[in-house]
Amino acid sequence: MFESTLVRTESDERLARSLTEISGYRDTGRDGWSREVFSDPYRVSRSMVARTMSGAGLEVHRDGAGNIIGRLPGSNPLAPPLVSGSHTDTVDGGGRFDGIVGVMGAIEAARSIRESGSRLTRDLLVVDFLGEESNEFGLSCLGSRSIAGQLDAADLARTNGAGDTLGGRYASFGLDPDEVIRSVWPSARRPHAFVELHIEQGPTLETNKLPLGIVTAITGIERMVATFAGAADHAGTTSMTDRVDAMVAAAEAVLAVRREACGAPNHAVATTTALESASHSTNVVPSRIRMLSEVRSVDGEWLRGVRGRLTREILLKARETGVEVDFDWSTDNDVIPAHRGIQDVMAQAIDASGLPWMALPSGATHDAAHLASIAPMGMLFVPSRGGKSHCPEEWSDLKDISTGVAALAQTLMKLDQLEPTR
Amino acid sequence: MFESTLVRTESDERLARSLTEISGYRDTGRDGWSREVFSDPYRVSRSMVARTMSGAGLEVHRDGAGNIIGRLPGSNPLAPPLVSGSHTDTVDGGGRFDGIVGVMGAIEAARSIRESGSRLTRDLLVVDFLGEESNEFGLSCLGSRSIAGQLDAADLARTNGAGDTLGGRYASFGLDPDEVIRSVWPSARRPHAFVELHIEQGPTLETNKLPLGIVTAITGIERMVATFAGAADHAGTTSMTDRVDAMVAAAEAVLAVRREACGAPNHAVATTTALESASHSTNVVPSRIRMLSEVRSVDGEWLRGVRGRLTREILLKARETGVEVDFDWSTDNDVIPAHRGIQDVMAQAIDASGLPWMALPSGATHDAAHLASIAPMGMLFVPSRGGKSHCPEEWSDLKDISTGVAALAQTLMKLDQLEPTR
Repeated sequence: MFESTLVRTESDERLARSLTEISGYRDTGRDGWSREVFSDPYRVSRSMVARTMSGAGLEVHRDGAGNIIGRLPGSNPLAPPLVSGSHTDTVDGGGRFDGIVGVMGAIEAARSIRESGSRLTRDLLVVDFLGEESNEFGLSCLGSRSIAGQLDAADLARTNGAGDTLGGRYASFGLDPDEVIRSVWPSARRPHAFVELHIEQGPTLETNKLPLGIVTAITGIERMVATFAGAADHAGTTSMTDRVDAMVAAAEAVLAVRREACGAPNHAVATTTALESASHSTNVVPSRIRMLSEVRSVDGEWLRGVRGRLTREILLKARETGVEVDFDWSTDNDVIPAHRGIQDVMAQAIDASGLPWMALPSGATHDAAHLASIAPMGMLFVPSRGGKSHCPEEWSDLKDISTGVAALAQTLMKLDQLEPTR
Repeated sequence: MFESTLVRTESDERLARSLTEISGYRDTGRDGWSREVFSDPYRVSRSMVARTMSGAGLEVHRDGAGNIIGRLPGSNPLAPPLVSGSHTDTVDGGGRFDGIVGVMGAIEAARSIRESGSRLTRDLLVVDFLGEESNEFGLSCLGSRSIAGQLDAADLARTNGAGDTLGGRYASFGLDPDEVIRSVWPSARRPHAFVELHIEQGPTLETNKLPLGIVTAITGIERMVATFAGAADHAGTTSMTDRVDAMVAAAEAVLAVRREACGAPNHAVATTTALESASHSTNVVPSRIRMLSEVRSVDGEWLRGVRGRLTREILLKARETGVEVDFDWSTDNDVIPAHRGIQDVMAQAIDASGLPWMALPSGATHDAAHLASIAPMGMLFVPSRGGKSHCPEEWSDLKDISTGVAALAQTLMKLDQLEPTR
C-alpha cells in the first residue's frame, strides 16, 4: 500500500510490510478494510499479530480477555512495567491505520529499543487490545476494559438487535466469559506508565503542518438510546392531525441532537448513527423507532448537562403529537485528562529530536481512556490525511508513522528511568 | 373473537367462524395478526380459504398468479362474469379485518345468493387476490396486478434489502414467475363488474354513525425512495461544520414530507416508513441512508406536483451540508374514480333496505384500483372502530360486516340484470 520510494530504512520497511499484511485480513463482503471484532477476518488476523510480535523478539502471551501481549523483558522483573499498544479491529467500512499504527508501531519501537543494545530496566509490554471499536452490543474497548476491571457480568449480558449476548459472542470466539471478567491486571502488576501511539483521526495536525501531537485529554462520551412510541395507524386513512408518528418525532430529535453540539460553547460533536424501525411495512404510520445517538466533548461540565437538556427538548417536541419517548443514557467515557508528567516526558523526547509538535485534545476515545484508571497515561498523535477516519480513505504517511514510532521509543526509554509519578 | 350474543343468523355464524379461523394462521414471532404474503402462515392459510369457498358451494380454481378463485356458475356461460373479492394477507403487525372481510364476505354473499334459490345469469367469481399489502419488494396488489396485466418482468426483477428478487420469492412460494406474468384475464373473459367489500380503515363512517359507505374514488399514491450520500467520517473527531451527515439530511427530509401533506389544499397524507442505514457502526457519521416515503391524495392535480416540490425542497436542504440525494419516484396508483353506474346500483340496493349511507373517498388503495382497468369498479365500506387499521386493534362489528355482506349480495344481484355499462 505504500510506494516503495518512501521506504527509507529497515524499520520503515518492516512497518510498511506489517501494516500492508494485516490490511489483507478483511471482510470482503463489506466496504473498505472491515475487520470487526469477533469476525472471521479478525480471528485469523490475531495469529499474524502474534507472529509479528515474535518476529520482533517479544515473548507472546494471550490473556483470558482476548488481548495479545508481547513482552520485551527488562533487567528488573519486579519493577512495574511500561505498557504501549492499541487495537487492530476496525469499524464496519473502516480503514487501515486507526489502532493498527499503535500496535505495529509499539512492536517496532520495542524492536528498535532491543536492537539499540540498551536494555530497559522495566518490562515493556506491547498490547493488542481486543475489540476497541464500539460493537453491535454498544460497548467499545473490550480488552482494555477487562484488564482495567471495567467489564462485568452486566456487560456480558448486553444483547444485540438479534437478542444474542456479548458473553455468548465471547464464547463462540473461543473465550471463556468468566475468564474475560477475571483477566484484571493485579495491582502488584499495575503499569509504571501507558503510552498509546495513534492516528489523529481529525484534521488539526495536517492543518497546522505538524508531524506530532501530544494529547491533553480524551473526550467524554454520552450515549443516548431513545425509543419513540407512537400509534401504528394506516398510512393512507389516518389524517395528518390524527397520527402519532414515531418517525417524525425521531426526525425532530435527530435535528435537536445536532443543534445541541452546534450550540456548545466549546468544541463538541453530536451524531445520530441509526434510526431503527420495528416494522418494515410501507403503509403503516411508524409506531416504534429506536434512535442511537452520542455527544462528545472535553468540556466535562457542559457534557454533564447534555442529558437534561436533550431529554427536555426531545420530549417537548414529541409530546406535541402524543409520541412517548423512553431514554436510556449511558456515559461511555468521562473526560479523561492525560498524565501531566508523561506529557512533559513526550515533549522532552520530541524536542530532543528537533521536531515541532502541538498539544491537542482527542475527540475520539481510545483504550488509553481505560488504562488511565490503572496507570499514568499519555498519547501521541500522527497526522491523518484530510482528517478522515473510520472510512476506507483513512490515510497516514509512512514518514509520519515512522516519526511517531521514534518518538514513542524515545518516550518509553525516558519513562523507564523515571521514578513512579503517581 | 366475536361474542356469541352478537351472532343472530346462520350467515352471521359462518362469517364469525371463518373470520376467527383464518386469524389463527399468523406469524407468532411478530406482533398482532401478521400473515404477510409469501410467509409460512399465509401459505398454509390459502388451503383454508379454498375449503371455505368449497363449503359455500363454489368451484375452486387456483390461477398461475397465486389467486384463489371460487365460481358460482351462472345460467349463461358466455356472459361476462361478476367479480367480487379482496385479499387475506396482512401487513406486519396487522389486524383481522383488512381484506379478509372482503373475501369471507363475498363467499358468504355468493352462498346467500345460491341459497336464495334465484340463479344468476352471469358467473359470479369470488377472488382472494395474492398479496395486496405492500411487501419488502415495494410492490402491492400482486394478484390483482397480474390478472389486469399490470405486472411485468421488471417487477419480478425488483429486489428487497437482502438482494432477493420478487421473481425468486414467487418461485420459492411454488409459483412459476413466467406463469405469474401470463395469468392476465383474456379480454373475452373481462368482467361485467367488480365490487369489493372492505373495512373503511378510517374514522369517517363511525364519526357519522353510518353503517355503510359508497366509495367515490381510490386515492392516488406517489412513492419515493431517496438515497442520501454523505461522508463516512469519524463521529468523534469531525467537527459539526466539516461533516456531511446523511442522517441529518434525511431527518430534514422526513419533516419536509410531513409538511407537504399538512400544507395540501385538499385532504392528503404523507408518511416516511423507514430510514435504513447501510452501516451499523456507532461512531461513524452516517454516510448512506435509504428513505422510504409515500404521499396520497384523491386530488390528482396536486398529487402530480408532489415529485417536483418535494425533490426541490429535500435537495435544497441536503446540499447546504454537501449531502447528495438520488430519487426513485414511482406512481403506485393514479387516482381511480369508482364507476358512476355501480355507485348508483349500490345506492339503490342500500336504499331498498332502508339503511343510511354516505359517499366517501378511499384513502387506502385496494385490489379494486387494478380491477378498475379491466372492469367497471365499485367499493362498499363498513365502519372501522376508532378508524384504526394496519394494527392489532383493528376492529369492525359483526353486525356491520353482516350489513355489508347483505348490501354486496343485493348489489351483485342487481348488477347481474344490467346491460354492460361501459
